Amino acid sequence: MIEYRTLRVALLGAGSVGSQVAAQLLGRADELASRAGAGIELAGIAVRDVDAPRDADLPRELFTADPEELILSSDIVVELIGGIEPARTLILKALGSGADVVTANKALLAAHGPELFAAAEQVGAQLHYEAAVAGAIPIIRPLRDSLAGDRVQRILGIVNGTTNYILDEMHTKGLGLEEALAVATDLGYAEADPTADIEGHDAAAKAAILAGLAFHTTVPLESVHCEGITGVTAAQIESAKQAGYVVKLLAICEQLESGVSARVHPALVPATHPLASVHGANNAVFVQAEAAGDLMFYGAGAGGIQTASAVLGDIVSVARRHVAGGPGVAESTASAVGIAPFGSIQTRYQISLEVDDRPGVLAAVAGVFSEQGVSVETVLQSSAASAATLVIVTHLAPESALAGTVEALRSNDVVRDVASVLRVEGL
Amino acid sequence: MIEYRTLRVALLGAGSVGSQVAAQLLGRADELASRAGAGIELAGIAVRDVDAPRDADLPRELFTADPEELILSSDIVVELIGGIEPARTLILKALGSGADVVTANKALLAAHGPELFAAAEQVGAQLHYEAAVAGAIPIIRPLRDSLAGDRVQRILGIVNGTTNYILDEMHTKGLGLEEALAVATDLGYAEADPTADIEGHDAAAKAAILAGLAFHTTVPLESVHCEGITGVTAAQIESAKQAGYVVKLLAICEQLESGVSARVHPALVPATHPLASVHGANNAVFVQAEAAGDLMFYGAGAGGIQTASAVLGDIVSVARRHVAGGPGVAESTASAVGIAPFGSIQTRYQISLEVDDRPGVLAAVAGVFSEQGVSVETVLQSSAASAATLVIVTHLAPESALAGTVEALRSNDVVRDVASVLRVEGL
Repeated sequence: MIEYRTLRVALLGAGSVGSQVAAQLLGRADELASRAGAGIELAGIAVRDVDAPRDADLPRELFTADPEELILSSDIVVELIGGIEPARTLILKALGSGADVVTANKALLAAHGPELFAAAEQVGAQLHYEAAVAGAIPIIRPLRDSLAGDRVQRILGIVNGTTNYILDEMHTKGLGLEEALAVATDLGYAEADPTADIEGHDAAAKAAILAGLAFHTTVPLESVHCEGITGVTAAQIESAKQAGYVVKLLAICEQLESGVSARVHPALVPATHPLASVHGANNAVFVQAEAAGDLMFYGAGAGGIQTASAVLGDIVSVARRHVAGGPGVAESTASAVGIAPFGSIQTRYQISLEVDDRPGVLAAVAGVFSEQGVSVETVLQSSAASAATLVIVTHLAPESALAGTVEALRSNDVVRDVASVLRVEGL
Repeated sequence: MIEYRTLRVALLGAGSVGSQVAAQLLGRADELASRAGAGIELAGIAVRDVDAPRDADLPRELFTADPEELILSSDIVVELIGGIEPARTLILKALGSGADVVTANKALLAAHGPELFAAAEQVGAQLHYEAAVAGAIPIIRPLRDSLAGDRVQRILGIVNGTTNYILDEMHTKGLGLEEALAVATDLGYAEADPTADIEGHDAAAKAAILAGLAFHTTVPLESVHCEGITGVTAAQIESAKQAGYVVKLLAICEQLESGVSARVHPALVPATHPLASVHGANNAVFVQAEAAGDLMFYGAGAGGIQTASAVLGDIVSVARRHVAGGPGVAESTASAVGIAPFGSIQTRYQISLEVDDRPGVLAAVAGVFSEQGVSVETVLQSSAASAATLVIVTHLAPESALAGTVEALRSNDVVRDVASVLRVEGL
């Protein structure tokens, strides 16, 4: 029997992820100790209400309403409360006390990452967050370490399981957004208040984290252009399907000449693209790097037990370093690259127009594109009664020119309605 | 201008990967320094013949025929010679001198991993090898760190680009093995002597490494059951296609009740499985873990510049730790699990038989399966003249029982020929 030193773990929060982490730390103590080279003892679980009913069968005596006391007697603090406060204050307190920290808190990292990273660096503490993006899928270490010598050019990520589930239901079953959201809520894929998911805020936080990691800089959450899926209609998805596309909510991080860019919006993805076959609540992150070429990471993006896998991996990694000795390695954010203005990103638009069905209309529409310097790749025209529908896909053009084109189309006499505007990515 | 300390890197080998690594170290010195927090200086390149012609435009004065002297004056030694010796001796020398080591040498790690890991642990050196498996695809760190708290159950990997290219050509173009190999050789996907690839030895070394990592143990190369693709025929691939399968050379690592198992052989994979759509010389590693569920890692498995990406990531990671201080973290090999006998693994067989076309034959064949305790899932019978073809897919059964069934079928009177035997995986 090997004698290990024992590291005390403080768990903050006992929700779906936290209770799974606690159950695994308790039930697999010997196995985790042999992997870490140290005993990993669950010292306590800080929650708001000690007497609240719990899913998992966890010993009552572990629960405490005093996170600060628990933190001060722990080697590793695992923050699974979520949100900004009190998570931020408690992590800073943990780092200040010399503890290493594991967190799954994307909102906090996106909003206050630099402050937390600086606090960790100052004391040489470790701060790990593999679970913060794409749940169980290892994506933080691949970007942070494995690709540390490469130049990431672009990331296209499906990083929100709820919206992917909804869009997939709409695509495969022809449901409307409201119906698909109701199904997702019934099955537990969407929360009672789905705002953060369907408005894209959750994906935007992850995009900020991924872009910072990939481009060795800090990407403020406020700089992430964010559109959710609330405007996506069954008709858009149906016509996308017919044109060989799938609608996905993408987190897109790019290194452009004008700086780095992170954005979240629904996009048409070619049905042949690997991201198009990511179904249900799964996540996938597609990475294009200068030397490595195209990489994809795929798996479960959410779920208590799946996310707990990533948290436990961080705990074991932190424990190993604790045993070996030596400080945590600071984040790589020294790149002096700026943030690209959203208008400068290059993308393609698919625009559906209702127009008068008479000679000269196509010429007039084409004139609008050409005035804005936007080159058209395909035009599909279909007629019914006196109106016609034009579905236009552009070549790559700056976002500002594309948005300007849509504005100009809206105020053009031959255009009755701009029925749909979606960006096209992954071509 | 930040002043960095400078770390000296010794490069051993200047083949397709080595010359790319050298070119990037020279051409991107400032960028890599800002990421590592230390200057990374290419101190020299040890090669057998200093005067041999080189692809890349590298300064002649960097080349030396004396690797030992170079090693002794370096902080990080990058071994890209390949093969067992002198690579093994030089890595041991580097670790002994206190240098950290980066290697892409799967054959060496599979054969002498424990010796190298022990040598690194003894002096607290870092030993990184992200490039040893699946080229540019980050798979070592995900298994070693991100999944360190989970229980990996199974890995199905396409880890040899040459054979995947050949099988993909056979599948998509109907070529025979010889023809497809010739194409692969012409395009540089296969080496002049393709033995290590097509006999499965390269994949077997990677399987041993992946299994050791995934199951926290040491898996000797000799314990890896290895069958290459030399027996795969165009007819097998065609009939697999018709039955909804794709033939892939898989590296399969499993945690079984009887121990851990690593094996390499061609297998039928359902066309709907994510591995089925891995085309050309690409690699993919499909991981099933208890908590994380199904994960997949996809990308370029070989190529000089792609593999250089993984090597450079390791160099930057090693440099960061060098700067932070503290030793490397030892490999996790403490699990006391044994190696499962090959006969005890569970798999499915697809068996094609030429039999007499007369009453009672199916009963006789079915009797053979039942005697061996193998349960049949599907039988497809087709007749031509006086002979019939039976294509039988079994349920899961122990390898020994399945192999025994094939033996018994060969010596059964009603069986004219056992035309094809392939395992079925990924169902």
